[in-house]
Amino acid sequence: MWKIMKENLEDLTSPNLWRAAAAELLGTLFLVFFGCASATGQQNQANPDYVQIALAFGLIVGTMVWGIAHVSGGHINPAITLGALVTRRVSIVRALMYIVCQCIGAIVGAAILFGLTPANARAGLGVNAMQGDVTEAQGFGVEVMITFVLVFTVLASIDGKRSDLHGSAPLSIGLAVAVGHLVAIAYTGCSMNPARSFGPAVIQNAWDSHWVFWIGPFVGSFVAALSYEYIFSAGATLGRTKRCLTRSRAPSEPEKAEELEKVEICELDEKKDQENEEEQLLIEKHAPAE
Amino acid sequence: MWKIMKENLEDLTSPNLWRAAAAELLGTLFLVFFGCASATGQQNQANPDYVQIALAFGLIVGTMVWGIAHVSGGHINPAITLGALVTRRVSIVRALMYIVCQCIGAIVGAAILFGLTPANARAGLGVNAMQGDVTEAQGFGVEVMITFVLVFTVLASIDGKRSDLHGSAPLSIGLAVAVGHLVAIAYTGCSMNPARSFGPAVIQNAWDSHWVFWIGPFVGSFVAALSYEYIFSAGATLGRTKRCLTRSRAPSEPEKAEELEKVEICELDEKKDQENEEEQLLIEKHAPAE
Amino acid sequence: MWKIMKENLEDLTSPNLWRAAAAELLGTLFLVFFGCASATGQQNQANPDYVQIALAFGLIVGTMVWGIAHVSGGHINPAITLGALVTRRVSIVRALMYIVCQCIGAIVGAAILFGLTPANARAGLGVNAMQGDVTEAQGFGVEVMITFVLVFTVLASIDGKRSDLHGSAPLSIGLAVAVGHLVAIAYTGCSMNPARSFGPAVIQNAWDSHWVFWIGPFVGSFVAALSYEYIFSAGATLGRTKRCLTRSRAPSEPEKAEELEKVEICELDEKKDQENEEEQLLIEKHAPAE
Amino acid sequence: MWKIMKENLEDLTSPNLWRAAAAELLGTLFLVFFGCASATGQQNQANPDYVQIALAFGLIVGTMVWGIAHVSGGHINPAITLGALVTRRVSIVRALMYIVCQCIGAIVGAAILFGLTPANARAGLGVNAMQGDVTEAQGFGVEVMITFVLVFTVLASIDGKRSDLHGSAPLSIGLAVAVGHLVAIAYTGCSMNPARSFGPAVIQNAWDSHWVFWIGPFVGSFVAALSYEYIFSAGATLGRTKRCLTRSRAPSEPEKAEELEKVEICELDEKKDQENEEEQLLIEKHAPAE
Repeated sequence: MWKIMKENLEDLTSPNLWRAAAAELLGTLFLVFFGCASATGQQNQANPDYVQIALAFGLIVGTMVWGIAHVSGGHINPAITLGALVTRRVSIVRALMYIVCQCIGAIVGAAILFGLTPANARAGLGVNAMQGDVTEAQGFGVEVMITFVLVFTVLASIDGKRSDLHGSAPLSIGLAVAVGHLVAIAYTGCSMNPARSFGPAVIQNAWDSHWVFWIGPFVGSFVAALSYEYIFSAGATLGRTKRCLTRSRAPSEPEKAEELEKVEICELDEKKDQENEEEQLLIEKHAPAE
Repeated sequence: MWKIMKENLEDLTSPNLWRAAAAELLGTLFLVFFGCASATGQQNQANPDYVQIALAFGLIVGTMVWGIAHVSGGHINPAITLGALVTRRVSIVRALMYIVCQCIGAIVGAAILFGLTPANARAGLGVNAMQGDVTEAQGFGVEVMITFVLVFTVLASIDGKRSDLHGSAPLSIGLAVAVGHLVAIAYTGCSMNPARSFGPAVIQNAWDSHWVFWIGPFVGSFVAALSYEYIFSAGATLGRTKRCLTRSRAPSEPEKAEELEKVEICELDEKKDQENEEEQLLIEKHAPAE
Repeated sequence: MWKIMKENLEDLTSPNLWRAAAAELLGTLFLVFFGCASATGQQNQANPDYVQIALAFGLIVGTMVWGIAHVSGGHINPAITLGALVTRRVSIVRALMYIVCQCIGAIVGAAILFGLTPANARAGLGVNAMQGDVTEAQGFGVEVMITFVLVFTVLASIDGKRSDLHGSAPLSIGLAVAVGHLVAIAYTGCSMNPARSFGPAVIQNAWDSHWVFWIGPFVGSFVAALSYEYIFSAGATLGRTKRCLTRSRAPSEPEKAEELEKVEICELDEKKDQENEEEQLLIEKHAPAE
Repeated sequence: MWKIMKENLEDLTSPNLWRAAAAELLGTLFLVFFGCASATGQQNQANPDYVQIALAFGLIVGTMVWGIAHVSGGHINPAITLGALVTRRVSIVRALMYIVCQCIGAIVGAAILFGLTPANARAGLGVNAMQGDVTEAQGFGVEVMITFVLVFTVLASIDGKRSDLHGSAPLSIGLAVAVGHLVAIAYTGCSMNPARSFGPAVIQNAWDSHWVFWIGPFVGSFVAALSYEYIFSAGATLGRTKRCLTRSRAPSEPEKAEELEKVEICELDEKKDQENEEEQLLIEKHAPAE
């Protein structure tokens, strides 16, 4: 327990943390400005062009991740930060810092959009809301589904043991965002990113069904992170998954060596010996550079 | 004959098979949910936006293949599994298991879509059917053409002897799906994937022309697999193709060495000597990790 | 003179030539079927969706090049074959063989499309023609511009001396086709490929302004090939360009060494010494595998 | 001071400069022809298809950068040239030469478009202008935002110290252009490139709000260049950023070694010792080949 606190305090004093936090703020700012600008224009029209909105969100995410992935990991989405936390890629303090910065960036991005758009063209400023007869339960389900795919894709993209992927990770992530929008704009306006929903909601003071855009993406991300990490990742083994499910812990020697690359820990398993803690520390510092 | 059964039984007990089957189920579930969700929305409109549907299907296929290619090969389509079986990349038992899981995944995906969509927006739930005056024979022909291109692309992407392709295989496969939809939505709603047609058909109990969406893709896949493997693959040689056509079998020494990488067998040629059988076994276990 | 004939005769007996010719036929068949199918549907509508047609043509070209690039080079377009001939990447006999096969493939593709499309949905079967008030001279100019960009992109993609490109060559070529269509559908229906125009014209017996779709792409390709090869290619040097312009020929020693990779010859300079002839032969045999 | 002049004069006599200038002229010519052709067609319609215009601009930029990146760096945009100048990737004389050539190319491209388009389809020839109730201040803000993202993406793509990006740089840059258009066509018609605005303005003699399309992109580029270079680039360190802010200059030994790859200089810091000057010269000559 103390180890984790110490680890977090050390991360807090790293100069890289502040640069990464700035990158997350900037990335989310542009994500909200670009995405909501394309959606705002469409909210005025009888037949919105879903392809335009989906490409705007998808390509701005791909573009910003391309620009800042080496600094912060390029989350620009609290749901992805949660997935990174669950799979032990970021420390708790870093995750909180990221999420706060993402929300600030989203508010600033929405505010800039408000200022740069003529009053008669602002519409709802791209606020997420249930569309047509979609219930909150249905909207929640859709958000879980689309965020699952996004976080699954992100974890596959940064799976260090996979050598079969030669494409661009930022583009793949952007396209996962785009396909979620192609489907979900007609249901919830498509969030899959609590910060993206939070920014315009603050500026417009519009909070209907807002819980859906936090709980939905978080649940989808949580399930995706556990699924990929313990079942489908290149490093997942039956033994590791079983140990995780049973919280037992007695890795054989070859596995220990493997752990130097990617530490495998059951989520609630906090009684780790010092040696593992230090490895973990080492890894978390390098992780965002992945 | 006994050798093949033994080989299949051994594959059946591999822990990887069950993980791969789960990946196929999950992948097809999301394929049907995303693709049919975009199509469902369009079925209500006077002027459906084919680009939206085509991108939804193409990008979700690209995204899911990106996520699970290392586990199961990322078929999520019985027609591709058939192509992999014909080119001896998977064992018979694995192919059957994959196809069953794909169909289950498709039904679950369609059921989730049914539950998450308001009744007045469900339309046909994306069920495939002949459009306008298209006859079943014409629809069959179109399905053959588009599935040919898809399976040809998949086999080119995993052709281990090609060094000229630097792009992303999952994206290329996704774009082959997208281009098929751009063309065939206007003819059959575009299947090119029997499981994708089967899931919504079960939920809606709509079976008109359903045979087209199984036989069409299977024929297209079969022809594409033979064409690529024996004529256009980087390893195809005149000698190998001729031997295959004549079922004769007397490889020269250098060719035998080559066979350690990729076994060349005529489809009906079952009287193989033990040595080849063992090579085959070896390869099939490793193949899905390609 | 005799050397060139001998070289061509030797290429004629290469088994690879026939496989390459089959690949060109198949590739152009699918190019015409997919591209014209998307255009045919649009020709019935008041507001055609240019994005759908452009993506259909772009993605089918990218997909087919991905599949057959290692066999024939993946031209599937007489204009690209001309560019390859001008830059001495293919022999004369191979170029003629490719162009004949491309035209046959295009006719077969258009015929299949004719058969698979209900009579009331066939429209013009995607025949190219001047749109609105566009004159033949204007259409010719547009075809030159868009084919220039396509051939320039192809030559950049296969420029063996460039190490700055990490992306997918087939995708880049497909996107160059797509952007040409986004622009030129409104002018000429967009050919940039004489075979693509020839196939539907044969089936529909529609030959208005047909010369534009041969001369335009050929001129664009010719200019692009010379520009890229002698001015902008990574291996272009002032000396080489000058020698080409003046047809003089006295390479210094270091340049001679360089020529083993890529022979530099002025187009009309036929009085080459035997040594160079042999190098050339060697290269042309390997070239299509690039 | 004299050093810089000498450096510039030397660059002026480099044969590569003239080839690079020709590449910039050609690239901008096609950028304006393709982009404005797609926009011209749309200016006639009640519901312009933003996706078509955005893809046309994005894909022609990606295509031309793919073709000429090794010759000139593939700027084809004065705002990107400014970003390259600010980060010391090009000399002053080269930057001016590029910008002049880009403007000439843009005028020629717009003139060709004028000639090839029937009079009744020319509309505004794609001239940029404030749309609806957008004020010049709002338009300026939007141009700053979108150009920031473009230049940020370009600098990330050519950041020699990043090893985490495996995708295609030209495609990424093209997609950054596309996403800017998806957003900004509704505000200013979307410039993000002064030359692209200048060409049609000259041909149409339409200069309303023209300053916005020079100052906006230049401000966005300037801010993006400083942000990426001194805060987010892989080589940025706290020490270097501080030295830049305070203009002090006393690099430790390891940093000096590092400078052989990428010189770090505060913008106004002109009193450099001879040794650094020579390194700089060396680098600028090689830079366009990046």
